Order: sequence, then C-alpha cells, then structure tokens
Amino acid sequence: MIIVFRPDATPQQIDHVAEKVREWGLKTNISRGAERTLIGVIGDEAKVRAKPLEVFPGVEAVMPVLKPYRLVSAEARSERTRITLPGPPGATPVVIGGPRVVVIAGPCSIESREMLMEVGRIARDGGAQILRAGAFKPRTSPYAFQGHGVRGLKYLAEARLELCMPVVTEVMDTRDAELVGEAADMLQIGARNMQNFTLLKAVGRLRKPVLLKRGLSSTLEELLMCAEYLMSAGCHDVLLCERGIRTFEPMTRNTLDLSAIPVLKRESHLPVLADPSHGTGHWDLVGPMARAAVAAGADGITLEIHPRPEEAFSDGPQALLPKTYRELVKSMAAVAAAVGRSL
Amino acid sequence: MIIVFRPDATPQQIDHVAEKVREWGLKTNISRGAERTLIGVIGDEAKVRAKPLEVFPGVEAVMPVLKPYRLVSAEARSERTRITLPGPPGATPVVIGGPRVVVIAGPCSIESREMLMEVGRIARDGGAQILRAGAFKPRTSPYAFQGHGVRGLKYLAEARLELCMPVVTEVMDTRDAELVGEAADMLQIGARNMQNFTLLKAVGRLRKPVLLKRGLSSTLEELLMCAEYLMSAGCHDVLLCERGIRTFEPMTRNTLDLSAIPVLKRESHLPVLADPSHGTGHWDLVGPMARAAVAAGADGITLEIHPRPEEAFSDGPQALLPKTYRELVKSMAAVAAAVGRSL
Amino acid sequence: MIIVFRPDATPQQIDHVAEKVREWGLKTNISRGAERTLIGVIGDEAKVRAKPLEVFPGVEAVMPVLKPYRLVSAEARSERTRITLPGPPGATPVVIGGPRVVVIAGPCSIESREMLMEVGRIARDGGAQILRAGAFKPRTSPYAFQGHGVRGLKYLAEARLELCMPVVTEVMDTRDAELVGEAADMLQIGARNMQNFTLLKAVGRLRKPVLLKRGLSSTLEELLMCAEYLMSAGCHDVLLCERGIRTFEPMTRNTLDLSAIPVLKRESHLPVLADPSHGTGHWDLVGPMARAAVAAGADGITLEIHPRPEEAFSDGPQALLPKTYRELVKSMAAVAAAVGRSL
Amino acid sequence: MIIVFRPDATPQQIDHVAEKVREWGLKTNISRGAERTLIGVIGDEAKVRAKPLEVFPGVEAVMPVLKPYRLVSAEARSERTRITLPGPPGATPVVIGGPRVVVIAGPCSIESREMLMEVGRIARDGGAQILRAGAFKPRTSPYAFQGHGVRGLKYLAEARLELCMPVVTEVMDTRDAELVGEAADMLQIGARNMQNFTLLKAVGRLRKPVLLKRGLSSTLEELLMCAEYLMSAGCHDVLLCERGIRTFEPMTRNTLDLSAIPVLKRESHLPVLADPSHGTGHWDLVGPMARAAVAAGADGITLEIHPRPEEAFSDGPQALLPKTYRELVKSMAAVAAAVGRSL
Repeated sequence: MIIVFRPDATPQQIDHVAEKVREWGLKTNISRGAERTLIGVIGDEAKVRAKPLEVFPGVEAVMPVLKPYRLVSAEARSERTRITLPGPPGATPVVIGGPRVVVIAGPCSIESREMLMEVGRIARDGGAQILRAGAFKPRTSPYAFQGHGVRGLKYLAEARLELCMPVVTEVMDTRDAELVGEAADMLQIGARNMQNFTLLKAVGRLRKPVLLKRGLSSTLEELLMCAEYLMSAGCHDVLLCERGIRTFEPMTRNTLDLSAIPVLKRESHLPVLADPSHGTGHWDLVGPMARAAVAAGADGITLEIHPRPEEAFSDGPQALLPKTYRELVKSMAAVAAAVGRSL
Repeated sequence: MIIVFRPDATPQQIDHVAEKVREWGLKTNISRGAERTLIGVIGDEAKVRAKPLEVFPGVEAVMPVLKPYRLVSAEARSERTRITLPGPPGATPVVIGGPRVVVIAGPCSIESREMLMEVGRIARDGGAQILRAGAFKPRTSPYAFQGHGVRGLKYLAEARLELCMPVVTEVMDTRDAELVGEAADMLQIGARNMQNFTLLKAVGRLRKPVLLKRGLSSTLEELLMCAEYLMSAGCHDVLLCERGIRTFEPMTRNTLDLSAIPVLKRESHLPVLADPSHGTGHWDLVGPMARAAVAAGADGITLEIHPRPEEAFSDGPQALLPKTYRELVKSMAAVAAAVGRSL
Repeated sequence: MIIVFRPDATPQQIDHVAEKVREWGLKTNISRGAERTLIGVIGDEAKVRAKPLEVFPGVEAVMPVLKPYRLVSAEARSERTRITLPGPPGATPVVIGGPRVVVIAGPCSIESREMLMEVGRIARDGGAQILRAGAFKPRTSPYAFQGHGVRGLKYLAEARLELCMPVVTEVMDTRDAELVGEAADMLQIGARNMQNFTLLKAVGRLRKPVLLKRGLSSTLEELLMCAEYLMSAGCHDVLLCERGIRTFEPMTRNTLDLSAIPVLKRESHLPVLADPSHGTGHWDLVGPMARAAVAAGADGITLEIHPRPEEAFSDGPQALLPKTYRELVKSMAAVAAAVGRSL
Repeated sequence: MIIVFRPDATPQQIDHVAEKVREWGLKTNISRGAERTLIGVIGDEAKVRAKPLEVFPGVEAVMPVLKPYRLVSAEARSERTRITLPGPPGATPVVIGGPRVVVIAGPCSIESREMLMEVGRIARDGGAQILRAGAFKPRTSPYAFQGHGVRGLKYLAEARLELCMPVVTEVMDTRDAELVGEAADMLQIGARNMQNFTLLKAVGRLRKPVLLKRGLSSTLEELLMCAEYLMSAGCHDVLLCERGIRTFEPMTRNTLDLSAIPVLKRESHLPVLADPSHGTGHWDLVGPMARAAVAAGADGITLEIHPRPEEAFSDGPQALLPKTYRELVKSMAAVAAAVGRSL
C-alpha cells in the first residue's frame, strides 16, 4: 500500500501516519519526492486495508498495491479449479472448467411438473449437460409470478432423477438454503443477491457447488470478493457467471460484458460461465452472443428454452424455441472446436 | 398498453394477438397507420403486463401506458404520507414528510456501547431527531468488520431509552427481521438488499416503518416497485432514500442523484430522504450535498458522525467530526428556511 | 406516435392537442381507456417528432412508434450494403459487408515513415486487407503526442502505394476533411467526434467511405442517427464500428458491447466492425474479444500492432506484437469458418 | 509514479524498467515487499506519464501519484479565478466566481430576431446578468432545426447592444471560432464537443472567456484536462459547467451530478456553473435542481426560457415559462443568502 501526502502535509502529520502503520505491525518506506511525500507500507497489506487512512490529516490518497481477494485469486492456486457434479445415480459426472464447454439449459421458471419434464428433455437431448430451472423467482413486481417455491423444488428433484442429469436452481433466502442444497447439485446466487452477504455465508457453509451471478452494477472485483465470501465459508467450487451489466443502452435488456471472461480467467482460478439469455433479453441476440462467449473462452453457457414462449410465465422474450436451441448448440460446438475446445 | 406490429406483419398475426388480448378480458382498438399497425389495449393493463407479447409473431414492440406501481403511486392517495415515529416512552414523536426536515444521524456501525452513547449524544444535541447506527453491516470483504449483530441491537435498544429518541438500523436477513423490528422504531433495507425480495416481504409483514435505500444501479421505477413490495405486504410507512448510484465517475464513491428527490415526490406520496455520506464517500463533500438535498426538497437527511474517524471500524472517510456536524446542521436549517421549511 | 394524457387532463386539453396535430397535417385516433386517454397520430411521424408535445397541458408522455432513422434503416434497403474500396492502382479491391471478414490493422499513430512501412508490412503480410494509422490523434492531455498531422498523411499516402493496399485514417477537423479524403480510401470519425455534427456534414459531403466509431456514451440509436447525418449529406458507404462504451467497470479501459453487432445488423443495412484494441485497452484481452466479435457476426475487426510497444507514442498497452497479431488472425479465421464465413 | 511488479517478475525485468526510468531523467526508489516489488519514480512525473510502462515485461500496474492537470489545478494558483465580462459599452461588468451567483438565461435557440429580444428582455428583467442563446445547434437528428447560424449570431450581437448585457453562445466548428468570438463575450463549448480537441485549441487561442460543458460521459478529470487544453492555448478564463451525465436512469434526460461542484472547486481554481435545464430535461425539475446547485456552491446557473414552449424549435420540455423563471430566480436568491452569497 502506498500513502500519498498532500503538498502541504507537515512532517508531524507524516510521522503520525508512519507511527500508526508501525503500531499496526508493518514497516514503512518513506520517499520524499519533488512534489509529494509517499509512504510505502511493507508487510501484510490486509492488516491496513480496513483502516481509514484517508482521514488522517495530510493524507491525499491511499493506493492499495495488492488485490483484496486471496482464496479466489489466480495466485492462490497453481491449477485452474474444475468443478465436478456427479449428478444422480447412474449419471455421467459433469466437469466444469475442463476442455469441454458445458451447456446449462432449461426453462426460466418451473411452470408445472409436466412443463419441466418436457423442457428438460428438450434441453438434455439438444446437448445440455446440466438442467436449470427456477423454483424461487426474483421478480421486479410483487404482482408477478413468484415461482412455485418448495413444490417447484420437488419437481426439480424428480426431473433430476428422471432425466438423469445434475440440476442447478436459485436460492433467495437463507431459510431455504439447506432445502435447496438437498434438491440441487449446484445452488445459484442470482444477480440481485450477489451482495446479499448473509446468503453468501449461509450457502458457502453448505460446501456444495455454487453458481454465482455478477450483479447488474457490480465490478469484477466485487464479484470476486463475493466468491471470496463463499470460499472463506467453506465452499471450494464456485462458478462465476457474467450475465450482463446495467448501462445506458436501451436496445438490450443489459450489456453482456464478454471481456469479463478473459479478465476473470486471468484474475482467478475459478471457471467462468456466460448467460446470454439474461445478458441480452431478446431471443434473437442469444445465438450470436452465445457463440461469442464460447469464442471468448467461456467454460459454459446457460440458455433458457420454452416450447411456447407466448405462454411463458416469465422472461418469454429471451427464451429459445426448441429448434433454435438445438441449432444454436450445434453452432456453439463449431466455435468451441475453432478455439481448441469441445462441447 | 400499445402493441406495435412490424411493417411485414400479416393480418393473421395481428388478429391472433387481438384475440389473445380479448381472451385475457380486455378490449382492443386497432389502428392501421401508413407504416405500422397498432393495437391499443383498453382495460386493466395489469392483466397483460406480465404476458410475453413481444414474442408473438409480427410484434415489433410493446409499450406500457401506465406505471407498474399502484399503492406507492401519487395517484393512489390524495395526500402525502407522513410517517410518525412515537419513539420510546417520554420522547417527542417525530414526523417525517411534514414541513420539518428530519435529521437522522449517528455512527456508521456500533463499535461499542460507550461509542454508541457518545455519538448518539452528539447526534441528538446537534439537532438529530432520529438515531441511526448499524448492528449488521454489509461489507464488500468477508475479512472486514461485520458488525456486532445481536449484541449491537441490544446496545441500540439501550441508547434508544437513554437518549430518549427513536432509532433506525439495518436488517440484512429474513431470520433477523423480527428481532430488529423489536429493537428499532424503523427498519432499514440497505442498497445492496433493495431487490432482496424475500427480505422485503418479511419486513413488510412486520408493519413497522421502513427506510428503503435505492440500489446502486436501480432505476427510480425499480425503487418504487420495491416500496410496492413493502406496501403490498402490509407496511404503510415507507421512507424512500436516495444514496448515490453507480456511474463511471471515480472522484466520488457514488453519484448522488438529487434529481431523484423531485421525481420521487412527483411519482409517489411517500417521503424522500437523502444520504450524502454514502452518496459521496468523502466527508468534505457531505456538507455541500446535504445542503443541496434540502434545497431540492428532501424530507430528511441522514448523516454519519465519528468523534475519531481515524479509528472508525467502517466508512471513516465519510464520517463528520462532531464540530463539522453541528455546523452543517445549522447551515442546513438556513437552507430549509430559504425553501419554506424548518429543521 | 402515441400521446398519453394524464388522468386529470380536461377534454379541452385533449382537443387542443388533437387540433394541433391535425394542423400539422396528420390524422388522429382518440382512444379513451379506463385510466388514460390516448391519441394515436396517423401519418408521417417525422412531421411531429420535433414538436414539443410533452409541454402541452394535460400530456403525460409521448411515445414514438417509428425509429427516427430512415436512410440507414434496414427497412430502407432490401439488401445489405457492401462497401468496396478499390485501393491504389494494382491493388485487389476490398469488399466490406460480404461473406469475408475484413481485417484492418496498423499502428495506433504514425510515429515515422519507417515505422509506418514496417508495421504496414507486418499488418499486410499477417492478413490485413486495409491499413489503419493515425496522423491526427485525439489525446486526453494537451501535453501528449498529437500526431504528425499533414506530414503523417503524406507518409500514409506513400505507404498506400508502396504496400498496395487501401488505407483508413482519422479526420478530426472540418478544415482537414478534403485533405484526408485525398490521402485515404476511407475516413474515420473517432468516438469523441461521433456527435461532432459539423464534421459529419463536411465528411459526408465528400461521398467517400466513412468508418464511424460509436461514442463512449452513445446509444446505438444515436450512432445510427450520426450515420444518418453522413448518408443524408451524400455518403452511401458508412461502416459502423463498436469500440467499447463507458461503464463503471475499471478493469477494462471500456466495455466492448458485442451485442451491438447483432443489434446494428438487425436495425440497419450497413456493415459493422469491432475494435477490440480500444474496446479493452489491454493487449492480452484483444485476442479473446477479437475472436468473440467474429463469432458475433462482425464484418471486420480493427487491430493495433506495434513491434516495440515499450516505445509506442500512444496506446502501447493495447498494441499487439507482430507474432501475437499473426497468430490471432489465424485463430480469427478458424472462428470465421465456424460461423460460415471466411477471413 | 509507482510501478508495481508481478510476483514472478525477474530481477532483470525490474532492472530493465529502472534503467529506462533513469534514462528518461528521473530517479528511482526500489522497495521490495513481501509480495510485490515496487519502483517509486522520483522527479517530474509528466516526463513518464505518456510512456507505456504497463507493457514492460514483469510490470503489473502503474499508479500515477500526481494529477495530470497543471494550469487548471488548485495548486497552480493561490486565489480562485474570477472571470470578468465587461459586456457592451455602458453595461455593468459581470464577475463570475465572486461572492455573487450569476444567472445566465435565454432561449435554447435563436428562433427569430423578435423572439430573441422578447426572451432576452424577460431573462434580464427577471434577474439574469448574461444572455444565452444558440445560433449553431447540435441536434441528434439531421432533420431537426440546426439553428440560424451566422444570421443568428447577428441577432445576438444586436440583442447584446439593445439589452446592454454580455452574451454567450455555442461554437461548434473551428471555422466559425473567430466569428463567434467577435459576436459574443464568452464562447460555449457544448457537451458533445468537450473532447473536440481541435476546437478547444482554436477557441483557446482566441483568449476570450470560454464556458466549457462537461461531456455526457466525461469524468471530472477529463473535463479538467479539456480546460487544460484551453488554458495551455492561451485562454485564462474558463468556466466549467456541470450539465448532467449519462446513466441508466430513464426518468430524467441526464443525471445532474451536483457533487461535481464541490469536487471541481476543490481540484481547480476555476469557477463552476450548473445547467439544470439540460441536466434534467423537464421544466418541473429545473427549479428544485437550480436551488440545489446554488446550495451546493455553484458560481452560476444557466436556465432556458420560452414564452410559448409549445412552439419551441428545440428542447421545449425543459424551458421555463417567464413567470416560473421569475419565481425561480427569487427562490434561488433566498438559497444563495442561506449559504452566504448573493444573487
């Protein structure tokens, strides 16, 4: 950490800060330049990160040198994390983060048991390795369909066995964490709950794989810090998911920030997913952006399917028709091959 | 609601949509222009709002005519809502939303019983009518101070009695909602939890006053929809709080969007608060922005105070020194008088 | 266009607006709903677009039904535009917007005649069909290198002949438009000048191909309206370029909005380019994002090369080394093939 | 400047950078911490600011310590700049940046000679000290009214004499700079041209006062760097203007960032203006935000007036009626008095 002093800082002010830093158990390296005096803090930066150094008289700026994340950092592990979902008895285990790009597909929300089975079968037969479907739905309006809740979880557990594939579903409430953890192979933390820190701690303690979606206005550093919450609570298998950020552009629902993929893979050892359905909000943009995400190095793609989007309970405009979905998976496979991976 | 068709939409496609709308119990008004055909939907727009009309073949765009909020809407009540906090026995009740601008002040987090009493006394004696202090703290890093939790709530209940003034504190977990509701006169939903819909429902059911902070990237419509969650769950006293949004500007922690104040007061009957401490992140900007918020019509201002910011456990850089705080309240009173209010 | 009235609008107010609309030569369709009265405006919407209908008493909102762009609109032409650059005598003409994805490469700025020739040769031999290089450089600081100006143009004209390939370079001033138009096969309007309307008119009148970069905070509609400026001034060959927008994310210089590619190709008949060098600002992100842009459907990619980035006069951090550039073009070709195109 | 090395940087890489820095005429202070090695660069930071240090092998990050602006910096002058506009013969000179808050008012665009005189008289009699009106208008659409140009300038020069007050108007093209400089007491650089660097240089060389508007997506540092362009070209009197930035919020045209006022006054000695008309885009929000800007410390406020907004050629929705304007100026005077200033 570097502490920069104002040009008018007095020697007393500079000494006062230096003494404090040494009190906290670190060393100081004072450098007096032509225009500014600096203190370089030597030692465990984490010890001073939370200290309000900006408020000490004479201090102009405080510049951290190290990243605030540790466990999730690429420096923390020599190898990339691979998440293995064994799935239900008899299923082929799915590995996320290896050479194969994983497709996670299903309906936005579980509308009924039959609908879930129908879409799940379409997803699986079209190439998906993991089934996704929402039992608890975060909705902007209190008057919109809020999901079938516990009943939806039950249907999901049944679909998991019947389709013989692992499932992932969202958890929104600390009180539901265990229940969701029992029903699903992987728990999803949604974008609106990314910084719901009590939920992160409760879910992290389950030690099950977690799919963590980037918040609509969260920086990549904040996303990594939320993964750090999960890892520090005991969860080793975190899948980071870019799903679009909020910008000024109205023609898309969100702006899918694909550069997040190479940045996250450089900064962290965790695998990275892209969600072009929520990222664009329009089914006709899902295909180009799904292919682009594979080309950018995504370890997986999540897709929403609906056989009759006109009747969808939620997010119909971004759902793919079964035929479009199947063709998209094929074209994603071609792009995966072009960048040295398979699907 | 207006449904706009593509120029190449067929009569069959247009009829199909019109029939569906009539099936849902609404009337249609078809208008064939030179370049586009439109269907005007007549009747209760809420019935079709959640329908995925955009995915019907031939449809180019769907434009809602009405706002999605009802209970919070200025149209829903002829008078502005005034929230009354009776406070502890013997206290003067505080009214938010009336002619008097309310000051809510205190430390960012409850660091100890003594510190809370010290800062609470400074807050009260300097002009604050409501004490704020955090027991549960949302922190970006899992390694930062997370608040004293239940012990903090106990201190807060004691300060409430001792200082004889109402208190507000943040609730972060549905499991803590009742406990926080017992300790505090008003519950705060923080910016990161604004769209934590399960928390909104749980807190709304307590029917206690709620201070709802705008999310970092939430539109004003989304903020109002979250207030609608609270009201539809039974809470009548919601205080909306602008606390800065996320933009590209790095010189301030957030961008305090003061235009939210007149917009929210036009759209809704609920009172509006501004938080210049979080909104700017720097103590030297808090004063100008607090005065500006009063001039823009805020019904209250929330301020963070710390007698020794150098030792603050959290958010030291934005805390006011006691002397600065007292002078600020005086200057805010002058501005309040200039716009026809008192403080 | 739909005019929505407030619930308390009087019949006189509604009639007043309807009369005005008819005065302007359009027809009206009045629809009285349960909660709002609407006027549908029938006829040439462009006639009323600029009228300040929002300020008429009783009006709540005005919703345009048609897009404000005409000449650039996909509806305006049955075929996609292909821009042909014949290049210097003896060169193979380059077609942009056809099945082949075009590579436009070169140095950020023309540092010297020798350097331009060196990098131009690397660009051409590595697969680029068009040479890019800046003679006039927009720089954030007045103390930074501002480009060699007219001397740079001269070098560029020489490189064009010597390397026998078309060139594109930026024009920043109306006074230079003709000169740049004589030296280059295509003129570039930079992101900071996207809404420099006098420059757009001056350049459009030259009737030469123009590469128009999206402004840092411009919507896609605004980008298309700037292309409309060029086309309405006489220029038929406009190449739209996504180069990153400004968001809150600090880990990349800008956020490359790749969803702009499918959106622009849906809205307009003009070809679309992506600039991953400026869009990310870091050479190690250029490769993944260039491949992603090709997968998303870009008609061309622009790349910055520098043989010795340590000595670059500008934008060194985003320049590719010659070897990295050559490998990238190969991998882009593989992705192009995967999506049914060539490179 | 601090250069941070990756944990795996070799001693050779570190030495190579240190040697380069010394070659450029600066001293180095190498500090080897537990996790990172740093080089502190001692001497004139401006010499290395433009060097692409990030691309040197082994370098992780480069952190400037000093601000990139010099002439505009608060450190550059011991006193705040006051801009004096003498105005036409017989006029009372207007001082911007002193104790008095200045009102700059007029129509958005000059629609006719009569209309300009009418609105100018309303502006002056209602309290404005400077007349504003646009002859050259930047418009999103090429089909919208583009201003009367040179004829408008002529009307403005006449209004200046007749109303006996200084005038300010926008210049959009380097070719018009001298002409506008002859007609007006102060030249305005609009938001869309803030980073039109050739225009900044041309206008700066006129050495006349300049009103520089912040770009829609420009940081405050970038705004100050554009003021630096003007000052380094010879202009000493630059008035910085906050006019709203682009965010995700759709209920206002832009987000007026009032915290820019105290930040700019801390960073620079130049006076600061606020434009609540463009900043909000709605006349009913102009009043609250104008008062808020005065409370936040603005040295001036710019307002748009139209006697018949229904007939305005441009920006009607944000224009104030004469009566509203007069009342607003009175309430702004009350707020100015509350913060120790006059109007």
